[in-house]
Amino acid sequence: MRLSRFFLPLLKETPAEAQIVSHRLMLRTGMIRQEAAGIYAWLPLGFKVLKKIEKIVQEEMQRAGAIELLMPTLQLADLWRESGRYEDYGQEMLRIKDRHEREMLYGPTNEEMITEIFRGTVKTYKDLPLNLFHVQWKFRDEQRPRFGVMRGREFLMKDAYSFDIDEAAARRSYNRMFVAYLNTFARMGLKAVPMRADTGPIGGDLSHEFIILADTGESAVFCHKDLVDMPAPGTDVDWDDLQHIFEERTSLYAATEEMHDADAFAKVPEDKQLSARGIEVGHIFYFGEKYSKPMRAVVNGPDGDITVHMGSYGIGVSRLLGAIIEASHDDNGIIWPESVAPFDCAVINLRVGDAGCDAACEEAYAALQKAGRDVLYHDGDDRPGAKFASMDLIGIPHQLIIGPKGLADGNVELKNRATGERQVLPLAAALAQLTGA
Amino acid sequence: MRLSRFFLPLLKETPAEAQIVSHRLMLRTGMIRQEAAGIYAWLPLGFKVLKKIEKIVQEEMQRAGAIELLMPTLQLADLWRESGRYEDYGQEMLRIKDRHEREMLYGPTNEEMITEIFRGTVKTYKDLPLNLFHVQWKFRDEQRPRFGVMRGREFLMKDAYSFDIDEAAARRSYNRMFVAYLNTFARMGLKAVPMRADTGPIGGDLSHEFIILADTGESAVFCHKDLVDMPAPGTDVDWDDLQHIFEERTSLYAATEEMHDADAFAKVPEDKQLSARGIEVGHIFYFGEKYSKPMRAVVNGPDGDITVHMGSYGIGVSRLLGAIIEASHDDNGIIWPESVAPFDCAVINLRVGDAGCDAACEEAYAALQKAGRDVLYHDGDDRPGAKFASMDLIGIPHQLIIGPKGLADGNVELKNRATGERQVLPLAAALAQLTGA
Repeated sequence: MRLSRFFLPLLKETPAEAQIVSHRLMLRTGMIRQEAAGIYAWLPLGFKVLKKIEKIVQEEMQRAGAIELLMPTLQLADLWRESGRYEDYGQEMLRIKDRHEREMLYGPTNEEMITEIFRGTVKTYKDLPLNLFHVQWKFRDEQRPRFGVMRGREFLMKDAYSFDIDEAAARRSYNRMFVAYLNTFARMGLKAVPMRADTGPIGGDLSHEFIILADTGESAVFCHKDLVDMPAPGTDVDWDDLQHIFEERTSLYAATEEMHDADAFAKVPEDKQLSARGIEVGHIFYFGEKYSKPMRAVVNGPDGDITVHMGSYGIGVSRLLGAIIEASHDDNGIIWPESVAPFDCAVINLRVGDAGCDAACEEAYAALQKAGRDVLYHDGDDRPGAKFASMDLIGIPHQLIIGPKGLADGNVELKNRATGERQVLPLAAALAQLTGA
Repeated sequence: MRLSRFFLPLLKETPAEAQIVSHRLMLRTGMIRQEAAGIYAWLPLGFKVLKKIEKIVQEEMQRAGAIELLMPTLQLADLWRESGRYEDYGQEMLRIKDRHEREMLYGPTNEEMITEIFRGTVKTYKDLPLNLFHVQWKFRDEQRPRFGVMRGREFLMKDAYSFDIDEAAARRSYNRMFVAYLNTFARMGLKAVPMRADTGPIGGDLSHEFIILADTGESAVFCHKDLVDMPAPGTDVDWDDLQHIFEERTSLYAATEEMHDADAFAKVPEDKQLSARGIEVGHIFYFGEKYSKPMRAVVNGPDGDITVHMGSYGIGVSRLLGAIIEASHDDNGIIWPESVAPFDCAVINLRVGDAGCDAACEEAYAALQKAGRDVLYHDGDDRPGAKFASMDLIGIPHQLIIGPKGLADGNVELKNRATGERQVLPLAAALAQLTGA
């Protein structure tokens, strides 16, 4: 993409309302624009990152055997009356009446709807286990939306729902999601720690939040230090037998504030006790028959009817942008992990209009595109310092800097945003590095 | 994808409420499930087609120079008061109050919001022309939702918005979208005819609807017959000079009922007069300063302030599934064009459990996946007739049928869903055809 044909409205000033660094940087880089309290438009730079994060989430869900569908944003109130949650949910639920005065709501979560879909389509235990997921916009009418996309009202969420014939099978499904989540967050460069968590309005008695440690986190969390740097299990695992991975992670103490047990925490060796702030990026639940029983989600079993056991599994896709920035930035701006960066690399032309610079930049731009890299060509006429600053601000991992002085010596400069490392080398060598050729 | 691990809840009976063939087939094939009047869940088969259609739309928008972003579904009523449309829009607008009694609405279209984004971010004419698009769920509270996804309430739409310094430039932007639309629909196997159309609540004085001819269409349309089979311009065009393509298409008579001029139509040679029913799949508008003036979308020009000239360009992404099925089906089910088929090909195992059949099917499945084909492996234990019927019903373009009798002779069968053509040939030859190897 040529910057001259892109739409990248950077802000010179940081809006006063932004209290945390991710919110400030998302506004300054023109990733988002607030359209109402807690409701944002995703401008092209932010949209690109959002889609890259969504894609990682989808891929890891599919790898774990989940199948994608898409439920609508609006739901009938009567569906929520079946589970008893319509009255319970409180003011965070956005309630709506249509032109015929039918009571509806903007879905804050989808346990009821997926249970309705299941009971209307699946008749036999032979079709289980089944895990269905979607990535859809949701709405929770927060009393006080804040921190940008971290606590917005309209937000993008992945939610998966598992259906099994009994608790043992449901726990296998839970473990699959548990492992998929560890891999998902690791691919985004995040160290997510699963912690025992309160089940809140979703219900059930087994639940883990996946927490990123950050000073700006909204929750107090307590865990064994070793959990923070424990590597993700990876994808080369036996998906039918993950209990040892689950146990390895859950045998060490980790709990959110609501589930914190000071006595148990005191038994963790003192130098391993970590008490910190955390950002919740995922939350998984096993809740058995909580929805399937009142809503009669029943399949034929070998010996009669079976009420299915369910779990649900959420990832805050739009919130992840904020979480990643909180975890990875410096004074100059965002430091995107390569997997979710809006562009893999930038070509920075230090003197647009100079025949040699233009030709070298066009050559680099074409070669990188041909190699399948997502490349931004800075072809604007700002002065060099402004170009460096803006590419650092938006956090492009690899920056290929081409100017007349270097070219006179046959060289370009290749800069790594994360490490700050700079190499001076011939263009062909730089391109070989960037394309892995 | 193995069918045994997919979720494909086919219906045996056609629900009585479905009046048109696309609605019947989308329900029978388990592509969609109604969750409220005019509100559907997209089950995995339908979701896959929806995403393939969305991708074609995105690619052709990008080719025409438009840049993707994403606006939220909910909007502030006050924004629509600026343009004067809040009171005008009528009961199709779903009006909502949040917990603080702020007036909001579920966006039926986004002219106001994109104008707000533009005026807040673009300051100089040097950044024009600019075309921003998004693909987002919208809501129109139809009095009587019907025909499945053809006239739903919650629907997926692509809408693009162009910003230019004057009418001449805005018409160039209009032409770019005009040509992009012709190419977009052609890639989906559709013959879409641009017709002069009423501008309705969007406004302006230049507008074309893109119409698919179909007996089940909701509008009466009138056009010169030669327009129907006129090939799409293709992508090898000069995007800065498309006026001749625009004129070639618009010099022949074509109008929707609201814009129909019986006298002008009478001048079309009688054997070229086509009076038919049509389905609107796209609608483009040039409306000048209708929104930019009241909302003060102004940029600095070389000689002072310029109020920008705007256009908007919609494609009914979810409606296209219905339109394509209306245009392409037979008594056995859907005939998907390859570009949007949920799977490119099916491997049908006629005797699951037979070692030879299983091995040949696994080999075929692996080879097709490796070649990047999106393949469905029918590994279920239904009888052969049921397998053939279901693969024809869901419209898989290429079906590789592997059974013990054929294998005994060293052969498999390759069936083309659209033509009905069947070839008996060795597996390796069939795979070579399917992979283009």
